Amino acid sequence: MEKSCNIILLGTGAIGSYYCGKLQQAGAKISAVCRSDYKTVKNEGINIKSIEGDFIFTPDETVDSISKSSFDADYIVIATKALPYIDLVSLIKPKVSEHTAIIIIQNGIDVEIPLHEAFPNNEIISCIAFICVTREEYGKVSHIDYGRLVIGNYPKGVSEKANHIAQLFNSVGVDCEVQDKILYARWKKLIWNVPFNSMSVLSNKASTKDIMDNENSLIIVRNIMKEVASIAKSEGYVISDEIIEKNLEDTAKMTPYKTSMLLDFENGRPMEVEAIIGNTFRIAQKNSIYAPLIQAMYAMLSVVNNK
Amino acid sequence: MEKSCNIILLGTGAIGSYYCGKLQQAGAKISAVCRSDYKTVKNEGINIKSIEGDFIFTPDETVDSISKSSFDADYIVIATKALPYIDLVSLIKPKVSEHTAIIIIQNGIDVEIPLHEAFPNNEIISCIAFICVTREEYGKVSHIDYGRLVIGNYPKGVSEKANHIAQLFNSVGVDCEVQDKILYARWKKLIWNVPFNSMSVLSNKASTKDIMDNENSLIIVRNIMKEVASIAKSEGYVISDEIIEKNLEDTAKMTPYKTSMLLDFENGRPMEVEAIIGNTFRIAQKNSIYAPLIQAMYAMLSVVNNK
Repeated sequence: MEKSCNIILLGTGAIGSYYCGKLQQAGAKISAVCRSDYKTVKNEGINIKSIEGDFIFTPDETVDSISKSSFDADYIVIATKALPYIDLVSLIKPKVSEHTAIIIIQNGIDVEIPLHEAFPNNEIISCIAFICVTREEYGKVSHIDYGRLVIGNYPKGVSEKANHIAQLFNSVGVDCEVQDKILYARWKKLIWNVPFNSMSVLSNKASTKDIMDNENSLIIVRNIMKEVASIAKSEGYVISDEIIEKNLEDTAKMTPYKTSMLLDFENGRPMEVEAIIGNTFRIAQKNSIYAPLIQAMYAMLSVVNNK
Repeated sequence: MEKSCNIILLGTGAIGSYYCGKLQQAGAKISAVCRSDYKTVKNEGINIKSIEGDFIFTPDETVDSISKSSFDADYIVIATKALPYIDLVSLIKPKVSEHTAIIIIQNGIDVEIPLHEAFPNNEIISCIAFICVTREEYGKVSHIDYGRLVIGNYPKGVSEKANHIAQLFNSVGVDCEVQDKILYARWKKLIWNVPFNSMSVLSNKASTKDIMDNENSLIIVRNIMKEVASIAKSEGYVISDEIIEKNLEDTAKMTPYKTSMLLDFENGRPMEVEAIIGNTFRIAQKNSIYAPLIQAMYAMLSVVNNK
């Protein structure tokens, strides 16, 4: 295990700040690339209120453009939202060298593809975060619940570099599981994310409880989950009915919860419709899987997004 | 043709006021049953601003409960919104006598059933309004566009009484077409109403243009129309693909339009989810017609309505 490592962080929102703050605690050096929050982060660092203990994350270097980073990056961590108009390839290109591994912590499916295509000889490490964390304002992040990560190389396997990152996380108390089939883990998360994110926004800002308590909409949730499972199966990942029922049981027990897409919608922020719903539907089309409900959700969310 | 006739009007909203105002102009006597707008209507009548010419509709009698009506009713006109918790049978029962025909002017499908079951020996005249008309406030109605009616006996046929009403309407310039298959006319209107009413509310207050302009949602509109057509077919009413395409072409040419369900939603009024979407879905279930999109729309609208 390397003694230290150099990480360039793209995206000092809630996810990027929390997890890179933790990696710094584990001994990594962080060069943070900021945009509108540059001055705040540069002058004050990032104040993180966390259920695991508050801390201030002061990046080892704060820059307003990746070209200005002095780091020779072992890793570039991408923690922006997954939005189609953010050209990640161009954004990171100036600092991708032969030995740079690209870590992507985002929602959805197929988010790794543009990076994998642009940098075929670089490791892409795909990362799924199970966490409730929000940026209240520039330089202020609030970690409310959970925190677990699942990590693995795209499209499969677990490299030394991926293992190294997992060890760093675990050394500072962040539960990080390595997965040699990271896409399977993504599909398992999509099972929940596709129906609840869609329906929470479309059903006039519904909480998980609003959706679960209605007999008709519970049927739709289950049927969307089955569509996602069919699409996953067409890609070689089997998600059983038991996993679907377990998802429903667990959700029924949760305190009423607003999905990330609903929070974005309520706050007038762009929603990750393409990464979560659009890409899922495109895989269905590619593999000729019939998915009428996902198609309808995608269509209506596209109308919402266009407005 | 009778010289005059006695009509009790239930529901002095926009639809009831406009059409009964016209019937009064044609020579009918109107006893209006009001609720919260009783005082205003009693004292001032109903001021109707209409593209066909403004007029004031002063009912021959205004009462705050149907039992107080002095009329021996030839017709009772029901022009309330189609909402499951309005018990029309109990409301009109005190004034339904042997020779009373019940006219129902409402959206949706199967709205006649409770009346038909409760008063099997009375004529039920089913009426579909193609009109843009709103009540701005108590006693103030604004007629903005269209005005055509389609009328026929439920479940089929055209009686002398139905013909009489049509003649009265036509005598004062209201285009009223008699239809011996009134349910076919209802299904043809549902073809449009089910997709656009649903999607306008669910897609964050989308206009017809917002829905039509998006390639994905246009596909969903067409697929929902096809589901409605399958359900209609299972009831014996054939709606061709040509009718569906004509509906889409006409909608593409319309000025951007807010559906009645969206207007109700925006104004915090109850939506006619059960009459338009719920009843359509229940007929699908009864006849074992697969209608996954209508089921999804119904489910999400139910969640919206429950909130």
